[in-house]
Amino acid sequence: MFEFLIQAESGHARAGIFSTAHGNLETPLFAPVGTQASVKTLTPEQVMSAGASLVLSNTYHLYLRPGDELIHDLGGLHHFMQWPKPLLTDSGGFQVYSLASTRQIDDDGVTFRSHIDGSLHRFTPEKSIAIQENLGADIIMAFDECSDPNEPAYSRIAMDRTHRWLERCLRCKTRADQALFGIVQGGVQSELRIASARFITSLDTPGVAIGGLSVGETKAEMHATLDLITPMLPKNKPRYLMGVGTPEDLVEGVRRGIDVFDCVLPTRLARHHSAFSPEGRLNLMNASHARDERPIDASCDCYTCLTFSRAYLRHLIASGEYLAGSLLSIHNIRSLTRLMGEMRAAIVANTFEARVPEWLAHWDGNAARIQTIQMKN
Amino acid sequence: MFEFLIQAESGHARAGIFSTAHGNLETPLFAPVGTQASVKTLTPEQVMSAGASLVLSNTYHLYLRPGDELIHDLGGLHHFMQWPKPLLTDSGGFQVYSLASTRQIDDDGVTFRSHIDGSLHRFTPEKSIAIQENLGADIIMAFDECSDPNEPAYSRIAMDRTHRWLERCLRCKTRADQALFGIVQGGVQSELRIASARFITSLDTPGVAIGGLSVGETKAEMHATLDLITPMLPKNKPRYLMGVGTPEDLVEGVRRGIDVFDCVLPTRLARHHSAFSPEGRLNLMNASHARDERPIDASCDCYTCLTFSRAYLRHLIASGEYLAGSLLSIHNIRSLTRLMGEMRAAIVANTFEARVPEWLAHWDGNAARIQTIQMKN
Repeated sequence: MFEFLIQAESGHARAGIFSTAHGNLETPLFAPVGTQASVKTLTPEQVMSAGASLVLSNTYHLYLRPGDELIHDLGGLHHFMQWPKPLLTDSGGFQVYSLASTRQIDDDGVTFRSHIDGSLHRFTPEKSIAIQENLGADIIMAFDECSDPNEPAYSRIAMDRTHRWLERCLRCKTRADQALFGIVQGGVQSELRIASARFITSLDTPGVAIGGLSVGETKAEMHATLDLITPMLPKNKPRYLMGVGTPEDLVEGVRRGIDVFDCVLPTRLARHHSAFSPEGRLNLMNASHARDERPIDASCDCYTCLTFSRAYLRHLIASGEYLAGSLLSIHNIRSLTRLMGEMRAAIVANTFEARVPEWLAHWDGNAARIQTIQMKN
Repeated sequence: MFEFLIQAESGHARAGIFSTAHGNLETPLFAPVGTQASVKTLTPEQVMSAGASLVLSNTYHLYLRPGDELIHDLGGLHHFMQWPKPLLTDSGGFQVYSLASTRQIDDDGVTFRSHIDGSLHRFTPEKSIAIQENLGADIIMAFDECSDPNEPAYSRIAMDRTHRWLERCLRCKTRADQALFGIVQGGVQSELRIASARFITSLDTPGVAIGGLSVGETKAEMHATLDLITPMLPKNKPRYLMGVGTPEDLVEGVRRGIDVFDCVLPTRLARHHSAFSPEGRLNLMNASHARDERPIDASCDCYTCLTFSRAYLRHLIASGEYLAGSLLSIHNIRSLTRLMGEMRAAIVANTFEARVPEWLAHWDGNAARIQTIQMKN
């Protein structure tokens, strides 16, 4: 289990297969987010038909509601939400920092108040692993501290804590069917990122995640950080860039050797009437779509594009019909899984780099306003 | 076209096939409501997999938004909403009375203000037919006036108008591929209902609807009215009881010779966390379901019951996930289409009356609070 087989490489980009207890994952891949054990507005059937193979769910949310012990008692998260393919849970760290109403971080863990009812809770590395073991995802994440890229002085403290906490996560972990990924932190400071990549790699986790990106730094900083880290990471393990992103980010990530991505963007945009398209991000509420018989994207093979006109989608949105959110979510997720499939095929054909300009041009104009959306969930 | 073939009878109940331009309808049938060209929260695929063969959409809503001419220009309602099977549109009459903010009725028509933006509009029988011809449903309804059962003195005026308006609808109708149904009105007064059934029947429309029921009268009054009217209606034409209903109402209607029903109830209940079940109507938000691993109804073959536990549905509702509304809508619609299928099979087997007590017992406790819900949309 957790074997990562690299089938092909093209430049730094890799096409791989990661084996989990719930089947093989073909990489590079994009995972939609099912925060509360549901990819918002979609049935598991719809998520699957949109091309998703891996779904991310949030430890912080599920711990608070309905409770990880309840999910454990009912057979685990796969059974609870009826997602038969691989699942990934985050550690709760990032959510605690960004969502909980008050939080106090110390070297042992984090005390915080629930955003739901204000009740007091504490997460430690041991607690995060215990929750994630109750949930039972195939890939689980080390409890980490994500620092603000604009507070460089704090980045070392957060990085050191992240390293100590990973050691504790590895010590307390009991399930053999879950792959625990360590997380490289260190803000946007080269020396910290190098130190963190070296340390995390030394602990030999079955996969390595890169955290603390797409949280307010510039695109150039993100790319520079990836350029710096990925050559240091072991080739035979999947690399997961957390919370990313836009079509452009996916291309730039795969190009630098990233294998796994997740982001709330496709489903969040959908609920705000926006769709990825080769014309740039479309707001389907716009009156210009009222009589437009075309699909969102004539090149897309998703249920929404094969079935409905922009005019109909615009009508649903104008009329307040929730179906619009479902149909746009299907399209947005499919746009990213399709892009991943195209990139994978190009890696296998060893034509990846030659096609990068085409992808970047095709998806140009779909990246705006990503930074602010990323932080929420 | 519009042939109604009766395949079997059992008591007053009939199993028939009604031919339309978009295929045959097996009766008795229950039609879910897609008010704004969408059965709320469901894709056409999901509506079909829930067993629906006919969908009702509302003339008043579609006229106001996105506009019947727009739908006509984009290829008609079937194409617009991508529902390939038969469609039925109401006349807008009932909606104008119950939704428009102000309305003045005269012998020629109704002037009203839009519930959306307060703009002034006028419906006449000719206008209602013109809109319905633009929409292009297979079954269209005569413009009628539905009177309050508690205002008997007014019932005759409304009935007489309904009769004159049907004559005008028949005169102005131009499309041969749409079956225009007349509507029997007359409140709960026997002599009016008899006069109305006689008049509507005399105009030889391809189907006859019964309006003005399930709008505030008692169950006994509804049943008495059906007992009075249905024997007067031509056997070889489908009979449509508008805006009904609950599982019990469907059994009592089929038992009295009704072939077609529609109601917002299954989808409206779903959005309020309620599900039809043999235990009576369930509120899935109830804490008693938090750890319940059973489906809503172990005897149900819908996607929701075959896939998800009550505990998961309860979690989705508690967490504000819209997926709950979709999953409960699938179940509630399927409950009614399945009941219809069971009744149809029993009619063919000529065991209908013997099974009535079983159905009424099975669905006992699912009828509460129907009257108030019916009136809205």
